[in-house]
Amino acid sequence: MTRRQLVEQIFSKRSYLCIGLDTDITKIPKHLLSLADPGFEFNKAIIDATKDLCVAYKINTAFYEAMGAKGWETMEKTAQYIGNDHFKIADAKRGDIGNTSSQYAKAFFETMPFDAITIAPYMGEDSVKPFLEYEGKWAIILGLTSNDGAKDFELQKVINNIEQFEEEVHITKHQTNYLYETVLKKSSQWGTTDNIMFVIGATQGDQFTNIRKITPHHFYLVPGVGAQGGSLKEISEKALIQDECGLLVNVSRAIIYASNREDFDEKAEKVAYEYQHEMKQYLKQ
Amino acid sequence: MTRRQLVEQIFSKRSYLCIGLDTDITKIPKHLLSLADPGFEFNKAIIDATKDLCVAYKINTAFYEAMGAKGWETMEKTAQYIGNDHFKIADAKRGDIGNTSSQYAKAFFETMPFDAITIAPYMGEDSVKPFLEYEGKWAIILGLTSNDGAKDFELQKVINNIEQFEEEVHITKHQTNYLYETVLKKSSQWGTTDNIMFVIGATQGDQFTNIRKITPHHFYLVPGVGAQGGSLKEISEKALIQDECGLLVNVSRAIIYASNREDFDEKAEKVAYEYQHEMKQYLKQ
Repeated sequence: MTRRQLVEQIFSKRSYLCIGLDTDITKIPKHLLSLADPGFEFNKAIIDATKDLCVAYKINTAFYEAMGAKGWETMEKTAQYIGNDHFKIADAKRGDIGNTSSQYAKAFFETMPFDAITIAPYMGEDSVKPFLEYEGKWAIILGLTSNDGAKDFELQKVINNIEQFEEEVHITKHQTNYLYETVLKKSSQWGTTDNIMFVIGATQGDQFTNIRKITPHHFYLVPGVGAQGGSLKEISEKALIQDECGLLVNVSRAIIYASNREDFDEKAEKVAYEYQHEMKQYLKQ
Repeated sequence: MTRRQLVEQIFSKRSYLCIGLDTDITKIPKHLLSLADPGFEFNKAIIDATKDLCVAYKINTAFYEAMGAKGWETMEKTAQYIGNDHFKIADAKRGDIGNTSSQYAKAFFETMPFDAITIAPYMGEDSVKPFLEYEGKWAIILGLTSNDGAKDFELQKVINNIEQFEEEVHITKHQTNYLYETVLKKSSQWGTTDNIMFVIGATQGDQFTNIRKITPHHFYLVPGVGAQGGSLKEISEKALIQDECGLLVNVSRAIIYASNREDFDEKAEKVAYEYQHEMKQYLKQ
């Protein structure tokens, strides 16, 4: 899906909601467990109930891999079932040397019909490039994540201009920034606003204005609303861009596990509607 | 497999060779393609031919995922086939927020019988911790990788002690080091030398002495020998540790694709023997 198509979907549905299919077989309603593929039946019901309220679905590969080859099949079937009117994200956090990343790109963009995959940037440019070689496909690079561990490296200060490289040095003047800022600046050069997005955690509200300044036109995939406590209002006020929105806000657990009884799909729809209803108001402005 | 068991395997076989099963269906001998599971038949033949010469096998998940659910099945069967006398590494470069990393740990340590998994450190402590909760299982954290992209972030200078955080500041005195050094120092605290290893690329020869100084007792998984051009001699001279070796040197393509004809397993054995023969000499000292 191209950027233009995605933006059209957002404004026609008046929603920038992404629903995360973190489908955990131990958490889905018990009455599904007797079916041949409970994970797929659960996803199918969630998709049927919410498809008019969201523009994207995000499949968290970990939950499918935990079920082995059978889980991988459930993932394939789910990606097929979603169809082409929604932006399909593989939340896979992949990234490796070039010839290996090419295989991951093949797995998610050819063998499966995903539009985008999340990528860990640690290994640098050649670990990301193979994902950018597909027309209409996207690399969603980890920028500043929603979890507590973001402080360990992402929020470490990095030196940009340095005069000396000794272990203990006097430096008279230079620029520093957070590692995640260097990641945004550098990796945004590897592609365009049409094939690179960034993961920006909703819990990082105090950094949002700064992040939008560094990457004014990029789309962000924003997890961390709902179970993790991020504020949809704050994100939207600080990072929504005119005419093109530039946000996909993901909610997983708060929607898909809204109920664990037979009414799980209706309850999921209700919560998705509440998010979409709130988003509609921010999109208006 | 515990550290003690691994060290015993190394000294009994006089080898610290790890063979990388980067099994690409387009590169394996044509006569295998008519079989029901060509990837598995290829792996089985390579394992049978090399098992006495190596102590570990590394499965690169990307090559299996590229084949879809069927490929995932090939991976499961291969991990089972290797058995318990070899250290089984899932080269998967995973890492996500805690509850998701727990699912990856389940996938590779419970659903499949791997001893270790490679982990991207970008998201910090909670993305690694779930892998350390399994007795006798290992997290192999990316330190300094073998690829060109290592210079983009891993070899960026990070500030450790800083007095001011303004964008343009005068700093009178502080310590700087490479990001990968901060990763080694910080993440080695999250576990022990019994459950954490690091990926150190063989092409990073000039950093090996420094790396061994920072983490004197940790095992390293060293890719980049063979097709990528790293030197086994240099690595061994600089990073092999007395009594416990502390190295697993991986070779993938140079062994498994030594021939693409019917003699591929014999040729693989021959190349593996050459590596083992060289390793034997370094282990002696």
